Amino acid sequence: MSSLSFDEAQKLVDNWISKFEEGYFPPLVQLARLIEELGELSRAISHQTGVKIPKQNENTHSVEEEFGDLLFLMTCFANAQNISMNDAFTQALNKIESRDTSRWTLKKDFNHV
Amino acid sequence: MSSLSFDEAQKLVDNWISKFEEGYFPPLVQLARLIEELGELSRAISHQTGVKIPKQNENTHSVEEEFGDLLFLMTCFANAQNISMNDAFTQALNKIESRDTSRWTLKKDFNHV
Amino acid sequence: MSSLSFDEAQKLVDNWISKFEEGYFPPLVQLARLIEELGELSRAISHQTGVKIPKQNENTHSVEEEFGDLLFLMTCFANAQNISMNDAFTQALNKIESRDTSRWTLKKDFNHV
Amino acid sequence: MSSLSFDEAQKLVDNWISKFEEGYFPPLVQLARLIEELGELSRAISHQTGVKIPKQNENTHSVEEEFGDLLFLMTCFANAQNISMNDAFTQALNKIESRDTSRWTLKKDFNHV
Repeated sequence: MSSLSFDEAQKLVDNWISKFEEGYFPPLVQLARLIEELGELSRAISHQTGVKIPKQNENTHSVEEEFGDLLFLMTCFANAQNISMNDAFTQALNKIESRDTSRWTLKKDFNHV
Repeated sequence: MSSLSFDEAQKLVDNWISKFEEGYFPPLVQLARLIEELGELSRAISHQTGVKIPKQNENTHSVEEEFGDLLFLMTCFANAQNISMNDAFTQALNKIESRDTSRWTLKKDFNHV
Repeated sequence: MSSLSFDEAQKLVDNWISKFEEGYFPPLVQLARLIEELGELSRAISHQTGVKIPKQNENTHSVEEEFGDLLFLMTCFANAQNISMNDAFTQALNKIESRDTSRWTLKKDFNHV
Repeated sequence: MSSLSFDEAQKLVDNWISKFEEGYFPPLVQLARLIEELGELSRAISHQTGVKIPKQNENTHSVEEEFGDLLFLMTCFANAQNISMNDAFTQALNKIESRDTSRWTLKKDFNHV
């Protein structure tokens, strides 16, 4: 099966949230959720890289699972703010391509282009 | 034009990063970048919601721009970790749909289904 | 008993860490731990303010406990970086007092001073 | 001059905030500020460790300065929540001393005690 598009992901999340009276959380509540999930991703990375030993009986989750949770919350946030993930991503990529080309070392193949 | 798919976004980022000798950063460096960008998103949200007044001469960026930067970094992270954004998102959505239905108040329309 | 000073807190943490072969973690590992703890503080705040309902069987911790964990990690970080918490705090306070007086609304009592 | 105590630091911050009509921000606004400052600390760490090259014309701040800003915000947060930094720190230290002794490798000197 082919991969979801940004638009389809945003639509799936909206279908889910629209089932509930509570709807989307206000921006600062969503931000609180984003840092919570980034913290969980951080813990999973620390476990994965071996820099942190899980506590006894600590539930461990994979980096992929925590990444997915964070991506889901990002999609909620985009919906609540009427942000098109596709547009925001495309603009970020364009900005980085125009700004950062000279910040890094181009591979030789690319220097010759 | 139709929206990018998760796979296409990951491929575009990989094309960009592959131009440079430095390649992808190690996981903890990427994590440091993620919190930096979440901090910038936080500032933009605070300005937008009016809870924080920008300092004089402070560069302000829109919530959408900071969101795009964060989404771009998330895509870099996924690539470096060989995570399929599509799979991670789909699994997160499935988990939430199976776990959280009873956490919130279903709208009447849905109770009747 | 009187309150610990910043210096005493830093010394207590150093006494603890010095017992172990591992010593202080590298900066990026400490940063990962700070993110993780700020995430836990965020969760405790969300529970306290009622914007998030704990999951069934979820361990809940108080805002005070999570705050203490974060403050402990901050003290570790300061030690590892040879930062005096007292100096850093004092400089921050001085900066804010000289910069931000006109950002907020002085109470009438203070306008007359 | 001797180092400030936690209590003195909290009192100094309260004296400052008490000058203004706005007073302490609500918890989620303070959390947003903490995320923002942790992001700035992260940027300073990345610059210091050389894993990130500052952008041209980018204002750079030292790790110590960003640490101080974060500690100041933590003190604001504690005040607004009626948390004693001294108590929270002491409880965190006690918890860690009783829980984590076996997580790390005691130095030989300490094994013999």
